[in-house]
Amino acid sequence: MNTPHLECPVPLSYRTEITVGHGGGGKLTQELIDTIFRPAFANDALESQHDGAVMPFAKKRMAFTTDSHVVSPLFFPGGDIGSLAVNGTINDLLMCGARPLWMSAGFILEEGLSLETLDKIVKSMAKTAKESGASIVTGDTKVVERGKGDSLYVTTAGIGIIEHNHIIGPYSINEGDVIIVNGDIGRHGMAIMASREGLEFESTIESDCASLLKPVEALLNSGITIHCMRDLTRGGLATTLVELAKTSKCLFTLNEASIPVTDLVRGACEILGFEPMYVANEGRFACIVPEKDADKALAILNEVAPELCPAVIGKVGPKDRGVVYLTSIIGTERVLDRLSGEQLPRIC
Amino acid sequence: MNTPHLECPVPLSYRTEITVGHGGGGKLTQELIDTIFRPAFANDALESQHDGAVMPFAKKRMAFTTDSHVVSPLFFPGGDIGSLAVNGTINDLLMCGARPLWMSAGFILEEGLSLETLDKIVKSMAKTAKESGASIVTGDTKVVERGKGDSLYVTTAGIGIIEHNHIIGPYSINEGDVIIVNGDIGRHGMAIMASREGLEFESTIESDCASLLKPVEALLNSGITIHCMRDLTRGGLATTLVELAKTSKCLFTLNEASIPVTDLVRGACEILGFEPMYVANEGRFACIVPEKDADKALAILNEVAPELCPAVIGKVGPKDRGVVYLTSIIGTERVLDRLSGEQLPRIC
Repeated sequence: MNTPHLECPVPLSYRTEITVGHGGGGKLTQELIDTIFRPAFANDALESQHDGAVMPFAKKRMAFTTDSHVVSPLFFPGGDIGSLAVNGTINDLLMCGARPLWMSAGFILEEGLSLETLDKIVKSMAKTAKESGASIVTGDTKVVERGKGDSLYVTTAGIGIIEHNHIIGPYSINEGDVIIVNGDIGRHGMAIMASREGLEFESTIESDCASLLKPVEALLNSGITIHCMRDLTRGGLATTLVELAKTSKCLFTLNEASIPVTDLVRGACEILGFEPMYVANEGRFACIVPEKDADKALAILNEVAPELCPAVIGKVGPKDRGVVYLTSIIGTERVLDRLSGEQLPRIC
Repeated sequence: MNTPHLECPVPLSYRTEITVGHGGGGKLTQELIDTIFRPAFANDALESQHDGAVMPFAKKRMAFTTDSHVVSPLFFPGGDIGSLAVNGTINDLLMCGARPLWMSAGFILEEGLSLETLDKIVKSMAKTAKESGASIVTGDTKVVERGKGDSLYVTTAGIGIIEHNHIIGPYSINEGDVIIVNGDIGRHGMAIMASREGLEFESTIESDCASLLKPVEALLNSGITIHCMRDLTRGGLATTLVELAKTSKCLFTLNEASIPVTDLVRGACEILGFEPMYVANEGRFACIVPEKDADKALAILNEVAPELCPAVIGKVGPKDRGVVYLTSIIGTERVLDRLSGEQLPRIC
């Protein structure tokens, strides 16, 4: 139950209904996108397979993205559904290299939700948006009957402006690039898991839920070349990198020993049978840059938040089938796959 | 139960939880916005109290809007949740005088939803967007467990570009303006009601769910002055006009005899105890123009879709407390109020 399902899933063509795994952000989600959404909505922006859409507007470009949030519980150590919903959309814009400007919020409330809870969440959204310089400019509220929802779901959309000339996205990834993460992984998923199950460890695991505005701005302003940025949300580091490898058709090689994980998260993962690489994050991203710029990028991330332990974790090899190899701590090699179903339902 | 609740509701400050009425688009929804959302998200775009936000971008302006959709049933005569979600957002952009360009879609799927149903809805969304020249460029999917949703909810957001210099919105409404509707009212709400309750009338009532692209483009390109446009969705014609009167602080006078309602809808409303003016529409809007342009505006609407029976239904009087007076068919006068609670839950 708790280990990632990496075996080949039943192909979507043999399925007839939605399973919880279709929301996991892994292989099943990708199948759903590939077989149902992408063919129907076909357009260039969708084909870029990035976290958001980048569209030309007058002489500039803008980014546009959306995320629905169904996290349970609504409040957890390190955040709540409000801060998560705002940071999730802000981070997707930042991953497109865009400065977040405007946001929308669509609420689906369940009859009986306490107004105090709603107020707390709305205030958390406002505070979180302000911290990243974004405004929530439009919204909508619907209410469903008791038993047709779960307290509160919120869908945010965001618009950002792209003010530089970097072409950031999976298609810019090249042989010789270096893969860097901005900090230790696995916190958000384990914080939700512990909070949901009422588990206690030596100390509380706090979600890493945070805006990536500062590290991304620092990287964009540094003059280095950035090929790709991607946040490590549902499906975790492993699923994200497998997706990027597949889209860029490049071979990625990772060194497990260099991937930062705190002892607390590693311990919790071991007890519960999770692999940190597949656990969701909400304030971590992979940044892929040419080798010549790797030291500078790492130095910038270290300057912004040294306590997160940013690290170079791997390299991009030649174009091939787009596979990720992991060299384990004991020196063995294996091919990483996407998470197939759902490791932790309703993680975000 | 079925008649609109127009009596004074318990003020929000005395309530502690969400009721179905908070999703009705009437007085309770407005209270929720005024006491919880607007204070938290305070910014100029929100303060304009329009259907979407209008933001400057380079030398042009753009509009941004969102709507969550929870309509039940998913399929109904004249449309489905997919066409409704796309037209809802497109129409909100059009009401800002914007040409719809880009859309996002955030799905919240319930475990067990059939893939065939999802596919049908997604295809309906794609077709509907294409018909109005919009592209769905980014999206997200979450899955919730059985019993934590109701098959499928979808939140769409949209971006449109404003290419003219009209200042369209409630603050542009002035004494002497004329109020026009583009067609007969009450179809959507009665179609949902009949379909939900399995009611049969002489013929099927079809929802008016449709894009307002054609009439709005024709009005914008005609050279007339447009002061305000607003679609007559949740809460119907009456609630919409009360909101516009309150925001503009003008006196509106309506002539009930001139409000177009089909015999079929009128009959169904009488049987079920609804007032057509409070029933939701999904393809109707009020257009408020200076008196000198009223004939031309009506002629344009008649040219685009004469079968809908567009009509001048009232006038804007002097600035006062922002009240709507209705002269009934038998000549009596009454003040209209917003719908207070929910007339038909999950109408859109």
